[in-house]
Amino acid sequence: MKTKTLYIKDIKPGEKVSELFLVTEKNMAFSQKGAPYLNLRLKDRTGEVDGKIWENAVEWDKVFKKGDVIQTQGGAVSFKNSVQLSISSVRKVDDVDIDLSQYLPVAKENIDVMFSDLMAFVEQISSPYLKTLLYAFFHDEEIASLFKKAPAAKGFHHVYIGGLLEHTLSVIRLLDKIIQHYKGIDRDLLITGGILHDIGKIYEYSYDSIFDYSDQGRLVGHIVIGIEMLDAKIAVIEEFPKQLAMELRHLILSHHGTYEFGSPKRPKTLEALIVHHVDDLDAKINAFQEYIEGASDDDSNWTPFHKLFERFIYKG
Amino acid sequence: MKTKTLYIKDIKPGEKVSELFLVTEKNMAFSQKGAPYLNLRLKDRTGEVDGKIWENAVEWDKVFKKGDVIQTQGGAVSFKNSVQLSISSVRKVDDVDIDLSQYLPVAKENIDVMFSDLMAFVEQISSPYLKTLLYAFFHDEEIASLFKKAPAAKGFHHVYIGGLLEHTLSVIRLLDKIIQHYKGIDRDLLITGGILHDIGKIYEYSYDSIFDYSDQGRLVGHIVIGIEMLDAKIAVIEEFPKQLAMELRHLILSHHGTYEFGSPKRPKTLEALIVHHVDDLDAKINAFQEYIEGASDDDSNWTPFHKLFERFIYKG
Amino acid sequence: MKTKTLYIKDIKPGEKVSELFLVTEKNMAFSQKGAPYLNLRLKDRTGEVDGKIWENAVEWDKVFKKGDVIQTQGGAVSFKNSVQLSISSVRKVDDVDIDLSQYLPVAKENIDVMFSDLMAFVEQISSPYLKTLLYAFFHDEEIASLFKKAPAAKGFHHVYIGGLLEHTLSVIRLLDKIIQHYKGIDRDLLITGGILHDIGKIYEYSYDSIFDYSDQGRLVGHIVIGIEMLDAKIAVIEEFPKQLAMELRHLILSHHGTYEFGSPKRPKTLEALIVHHVDDLDAKINAFQEYIEGASDDDSNWTPFHKLFERFIYKG
Amino acid sequence: MKTKTLYIKDIKPGEKVSELFLVTEKNMAFSQKGAPYLNLRLKDRTGEVDGKIWENAVEWDKVFKKGDVIQTQGGAVSFKNSVQLSISSVRKVDDVDIDLSQYLPVAKENIDVMFSDLMAFVEQISSPYLKTLLYAFFHDEEIASLFKKAPAAKGFHHVYIGGLLEHTLSVIRLLDKIIQHYKGIDRDLLITGGILHDIGKIYEYSYDSIFDYSDQGRLVGHIVIGIEMLDAKIAVIEEFPKQLAMELRHLILSHHGTYEFGSPKRPKTLEALIVHHVDDLDAKINAFQEYIEGASDDDSNWTPFHKLFERFIYKG
Amino acid sequence: MKTKTLYIKDIKPGEKVSELFLVTEKNMAFSQKGAPYLNLRLKDRTGEVDGKIWENAVEWDKVFKKGDVIQTQGGAVSFKNSVQLSISSVRKVDDVDIDLSQYLPVAKENIDVMFSDLMAFVEQISSPYLKTLLYAFFHDEEIASLFKKAPAAKGFHHVYIGGLLEHTLSVIRLLDKIIQHYKGIDRDLLITGGILHDIGKIYEYSYDSIFDYSDQGRLVGHIVIGIEMLDAKIAVIEEFPKQLAMELRHLILSHHGTYEFGSPKRPKTLEALIVHHVDDLDAKINAFQEYIEGASDDDSNWTPFHKLFERFIYKG
Amino acid sequence: MKTKTLYIKDIKPGEKVSELFLVTEKNMAFSQKGAPYLNLRLKDRTGEVDGKIWENAVEWDKVFKKGDVIQTQGGAVSFKNSVQLSISSVRKVDDVDIDLSQYLPVAKENIDVMFSDLMAFVEQISSPYLKTLLYAFFHDEEIASLFKKAPAAKGFHHVYIGGLLEHTLSVIRLLDKIIQHYKGIDRDLLITGGILHDIGKIYEYSYDSIFDYSDQGRLVGHIVIGIEMLDAKIAVIEEFPKQLAMELRHLILSHHGTYEFGSPKRPKTLEALIVHHVDDLDAKINAFQEYIEGASDDDSNWTPFHKLFERFIYKG
Repeated sequence: MKTKTLYIKDIKPGEKVSELFLVTEKNMAFSQKGAPYLNLRLKDRTGEVDGKIWENAVEWDKVFKKGDVIQTQGGAVSFKNSVQLSISSVRKVDDVDIDLSQYLPVAKENIDVMFSDLMAFVEQISSPYLKTLLYAFFHDEEIASLFKKAPAAKGFHHVYIGGLLEHTLSVIRLLDKIIQHYKGIDRDLLITGGILHDIGKIYEYSYDSIFDYSDQGRLVGHIVIGIEMLDAKIAVIEEFPKQLAMELRHLILSHHGTYEFGSPKRPKTLEALIVHHVDDLDAKINAFQEYIEGASDDDSNWTPFHKLFERFIYKG
Repeated sequence: MKTKTLYIKDIKPGEKVSELFLVTEKNMAFSQKGAPYLNLRLKDRTGEVDGKIWENAVEWDKVFKKGDVIQTQGGAVSFKNSVQLSISSVRKVDDVDIDLSQYLPVAKENIDVMFSDLMAFVEQISSPYLKTLLYAFFHDEEIASLFKKAPAAKGFHHVYIGGLLEHTLSVIRLLDKIIQHYKGIDRDLLITGGILHDIGKIYEYSYDSIFDYSDQGRLVGHIVIGIEMLDAKIAVIEEFPKQLAMELRHLILSHHGTYEFGSPKRPKTLEALIVHHVDDLDAKINAFQEYIEGASDDDSNWTPFHKLFERFIYKG
Repeated sequence: MKTKTLYIKDIKPGEKVSELFLVTEKNMAFSQKGAPYLNLRLKDRTGEVDGKIWENAVEWDKVFKKGDVIQTQGGAVSFKNSVQLSISSVRKVDDVDIDLSQYLPVAKENIDVMFSDLMAFVEQISSPYLKTLLYAFFHDEEIASLFKKAPAAKGFHHVYIGGLLEHTLSVIRLLDKIIQHYKGIDRDLLITGGILHDIGKIYEYSYDSIFDYSDQGRLVGHIVIGIEMLDAKIAVIEEFPKQLAMELRHLILSHHGTYEFGSPKRPKTLEALIVHHVDDLDAKINAFQEYIEGASDDDSNWTPFHKLFERFIYKG
Repeated sequence: MKTKTLYIKDIKPGEKVSELFLVTEKNMAFSQKGAPYLNLRLKDRTGEVDGKIWENAVEWDKVFKKGDVIQTQGGAVSFKNSVQLSISSVRKVDDVDIDLSQYLPVAKENIDVMFSDLMAFVEQISSPYLKTLLYAFFHDEEIASLFKKAPAAKGFHHVYIGGLLEHTLSVIRLLDKIIQHYKGIDRDLLITGGILHDIGKIYEYSYDSIFDYSDQGRLVGHIVIGIEMLDAKIAVIEEFPKQLAMELRHLILSHHGTYEFGSPKRPKTLEALIVHHVDDLDAKINAFQEYIEGASDDDSNWTPFHKLFERFIYKG
Repeated sequence: MKTKTLYIKDIKPGEKVSELFLVTEKNMAFSQKGAPYLNLRLKDRTGEVDGKIWENAVEWDKVFKKGDVIQTQGGAVSFKNSVQLSISSVRKVDDVDIDLSQYLPVAKENIDVMFSDLMAFVEQISSPYLKTLLYAFFHDEEIASLFKKAPAAKGFHHVYIGGLLEHTLSVIRLLDKIIQHYKGIDRDLLITGGILHDIGKIYEYSYDSIFDYSDQGRLVGHIVIGIEMLDAKIAVIEEFPKQLAMELRHLILSHHGTYEFGSPKRPKTLEALIVHHVDDLDAKINAFQEYIEGASDDDSNWTPFHKLFERFIYKG
Repeated sequence: MKTKTLYIKDIKPGEKVSELFLVTEKNMAFSQKGAPYLNLRLKDRTGEVDGKIWENAVEWDKVFKKGDVIQTQGGAVSFKNSVQLSISSVRKVDDVDIDLSQYLPVAKENIDVMFSDLMAFVEQISSPYLKTLLYAFFHDEEIASLFKKAPAAKGFHHVYIGGLLEHTLSVIRLLDKIIQHYKGIDRDLLITGGILHDIGKIYEYSYDSIFDYSDQGRLVGHIVIGIEMLDAKIAVIEEFPKQLAMELRHLILSHHGTYEFGSPKRPKTLEALIVHHVDDLDAKINAFQEYIEGASDDDSNWTPFHKLFERFIYKG
């Protein structure tokens, strides 16, 4: 296992940089004299940096591709107030030598702690059917392992290893507070729905190197994948109540709230309504906070324009 | 089994009418002197007619409810250029004595003929996996029986017993023509997709008496019910190819074409694109034709305003 | 002060009813013989009931108008499974004799308790400017008195005396939970924003008898009325920080979240984002619960169609 | 020619009414005893009134139909604060005896004066091609005659005989003012466009008795009918400049401003932009004023809800 | 007539290239030392390629312009996995020497065969009026000649010489199948409508060199141009039935289906409904297939993002 | 005060240019050899020009920033048919030496003349309350001074010093014509509303150097800022009529016409309706004219694509 010693956020202009990076973009460009050079975008868990290979670009181009981890030789320079790497040689790193958590952003909270906090919520479920169902999910090693790793989105909120878990835990903690606040809410259904609402995301994305959609992510999507996973687990629980199954399905199906956001049904139960709103709130707060944090070193009162929110955000 | 002898479309003002009807609406009204009377909407497979019970309305009200089949005594009168029944007595008919096909509209084509036409398409499927899948659906007695009976919608198109089968058969016949017309279409996938695109509707509606949505129809909907049925059938077919399953799922999921119409994914394969368009075309042609036919005795060039199409339709 | 002894929810068919009601609708109708009669809609805090005046309708029509409280003589009958009043004589009640809380629905929780709970939140504000501001609002007798009385809406959620206070308190209790959950939120701004977000509603509605919009409610609306009230209070606080005032204005302006719902600005700060979502959630939960409760005696699994939500709601 | 002596706005309850009316609605209704009666809606240029035929309704029903002018015998009564006619006998009036201007609302300004004001604008056109074109339209007797008569809409604005002329004249007067205000506007094109923008409406509606759409109004619409009329006239003018024709077509095609309102092209020239806006403004001002005037005897500050504007309008 | 010998798809890096190309883009750029060079986009019927003129760019710039066909001297190099031309000298080719079919993409099927297939459909029309009408169109040499050449769109579907003809033929072949499938369709009207639905496109685009909109294409658009052409042809056919003309107009006007897509009327007849749907289906299938084909050498399962469809398309 | 002698529109390639410019963009770029250079966008009131600093870019970069006025040394060259400056040295100019009217575009009409024309309208107001109100605005030196300077928008229409005043004056001149045209309009309210409708824009933008939004522009917006300014002025006028204040508020609030464009209320009075339409018309005419003028030296019949109008505009 290769280990990084210098992370992107710590690179200073003028330093020699002999380090490991994940390649997220690679394009050939050329000068007006026809001299080709390579434009790279390099990433580790602390950020991204541009890299240039000025010499022998055509040869180096064949050595590695987008999505690879590479070992580079070269130095850091400064342009446009940013650090940039000028790279003289490259070597592709074998997959077996890669510790992805060094290259991809990871949740700030400890993943195992978050997972056991989640399991504590599972323990509080009263309904034996729902508790059995949740065990069936999280005692399934593949599911548990992917659930600890998946991001919650490709580019909007919680875009990091452990992001899905962090988002899910945040949602159910909020749901838990809301249950105490209103009367007449079915706690078991609400918490179970909160835990499972995004479960299909573990198969919607690929996150072994660069985050992207999987084929089934684009063709089926996490909402329906989640229903299929749910059905498969329910099928092996004896006498799982039909109405309970139906309400749980409805909650997952409708958690995007409106047709426009890909829910084939809109919330028609109190619990589905609440999960939709809390999911939306948690995603947007995280998106605001990450975007403001990412724009913290600019001296403007405003972030750059946020395309999904279609607005500038006030940093205050 | 009770048998109707006089159908609504044949009732003439002035006749005595001692006949069987399905009650689709029942409301108490009253005159300005406080005299109660019952307003009924009565139905058989040839149409609907208003009925009034002027005497002893409160007592008769207790004898039957909306959704029942009743035996009435009374006579036909004419108001507003329409026939209306003035009813003197009523008796509720036992469920065992009811032949629903006398009370609900039925497809014009013979249902068994249509079903065997559909099965002929199944026979033409080359892929053993898809053929096995379709057998699994239509050799399932519950599914086959419901599929022969379900309407294709509650109030837009093919709203009659056998309507789903008629619509499905019409769609695959059109698909069959389209395959001959374009290159590069996967026939097996397209025809199988056409056959199964609306399969979830057998559980979306209740159609034992008045057509309505089932609970799972409203909470889950036929698109996702269809996916669940598909998954259940695929699960017991050995080595069903994963990509084929995924493309079939996508085709069902996306057959409403846009998010606004409840598809959680929009068509991203050629076959999904085609099924969506042909489904839409067949539904709308049927809706136009039925609406024009239903307005045929009015002497205007135009139908009444159609709420879903948001327009008057020209009868020509 | 006249006191009701029999409330609408307790009236039984067959009883004599000599009682006080608020008139919410009054229309003249007539029989086919030209005999006029009056259709009334009568209300008290427990519900609404239809009333008919069959005799001397033209004369009785002149005695009272919509919005009056009347003393009726007559009896209760039953039609369409509902109670209806057949009224023989009417007397208008003088305004001074009316205790409105008998005629309009009121919050279930005690209003003074809720108000003092709200004031406890005010006490927890750290910023002297914001605390002074909130004192300026709630030590203003007119504001405090109206704030205890106003409904939160005319017909969607919290439509009862004390509804605005109940909704506001519910919102800030949720905000208080959310503050504990996320980092980096300005508690003082969030709670103050939560308290004041709907303050303009005290002048948006009229609620002295039937709930309706005021002229300025329709022409200006509670969002901008709220800003004007805020500006008036800030103007007399020395050295109130300009940026704080601006952020508070933004929070109130943007609390409907989108242009379509009447916010001239969409949330651009974290606190504005949160208040918008929590306000929306609390309103919708209340609307769901009230609608389900109002449909509780129907034996369907579903409420009637809800026009604003554009759906049937599942009662479970 | 039959002449009315008593107009609807002057009928008082208690009077005998032997008078001429246009029938705009006719429906059979019936009492709870099965006694049929006729509900009529009667119209003359001053307003509308309900009428009832209580006796021998079935026979009277055969004597006339919707759209006819009838001579009635009977008396006026008062219900719901409105006058209503109780009719004992009816006679259909022959078409040749009808002066439609007594039955349909007419523009307040004199139609011939307005038409000659319009022609004065035609005289001011400098371009010989455009002047010839406008002569071709208005020296065409059919067009001139229909143009003096047509309403500008079926139910939104200028809904009266002469309404199209009044609206057109108002639009070009405003355009004339705007030309003086801005530089670089092609006066001839703008005024000609203003005159012709709605010319297709003379064939979009039927207005010989009740205002309605014609078949081509619904199938083709006034925008394209206008283009066809324009092309027919241009075809017989020698050497009409092609670009001028194209810009005039564009102006007519785009005068509804957006696709949503039925324009197949949006304004792309300055003149088209201006005609669209002035047309829209004049239509809406007329609609506001007519609606406020129609609601003038209600004592509310507000009109009833206006469906097209989706709002209540403040009368002030 | 100059003839190409080497087509773009066959150019290999390293070859000398002395060849003819259509210039679709030309922009001056410059190095950081102020040295200007020309960026070209060059096209022939097999594809497009970038070209660079490094030396004497300012002088060469004056020799030709966008839309010209040029004779170049130079060589092919490889960058970014693409071929690029490095050009040393250029000569503009005279229009008379240009065979456009070498530079613009052309339909795969033979244009004359397609045209005679279309004429065979014309022969099958029973109505003498409609047959005369279609003769009037296609025996008009200008129309026939342009109809064989025009693309069906500028950038969405059938974007090649003969594309309009190919699309039209495909649409009527599908319509022909649909007629056999449903009852009650007017075959003559449907086929004639199918043939003429896009006829206005022959004047909507310019396609003598680079495909673009004509002025009347942008100001009037093919829908209304089509109506004008139709009217001109009908005007010289004696006793052409008015209703038939109106239904044909409606069919052309409404063939985009909704206002949003530029139809001033939505389909209100069965035939108009069908033509709209079949037109839409054929356009989208072609667009999908062309886009998938254009992305065939990429090894992803997905095409690049398609802007009009707003999605990635699955290549399978 | 430094004075420009050479304006951008007059610079010729080949000239030496030692001149003053406003810097609107500044970015570091670099050659393929790693040599940094500065890309500048320079502005004066006659237009904009690109500038390059090829030598010592890193040092020059520290000398000035975006928004500064600089004194440059260098020469003009020609690329892409445009003039470009090659700059050898730069000096930042002190704020006190800057006459902004040399760097920012200014209204074509004289600002003081326009302002006194506006004041003449104020003098014509009959209502003493409204006249006092308008005095309160325009005798306020800060307001008057900013009102003479502010642009009417950041990038759509009247984007120049004095633009707000020019737009406002144009609107009220049109309103004045409209008053003469229709009956029943409250002249005082309409003209006052026209004068004040955009008054909040003086604080919505910053326009001391580059035009941009202020913080309160983004967080509060000119509509609500305008209301706050209005309230502050009304508060010190004795006995200002409440209803008049409310109608004026409504007029300002609703002048964008729809929710989508940021009005929290839509026009519900005749005067509000008219101001909205006239404001919209004047803004769009100016936007069309400025855009056509800006594209006048291109030889196409069409402007480039206009993003806000989403169309090409025909220059004719």
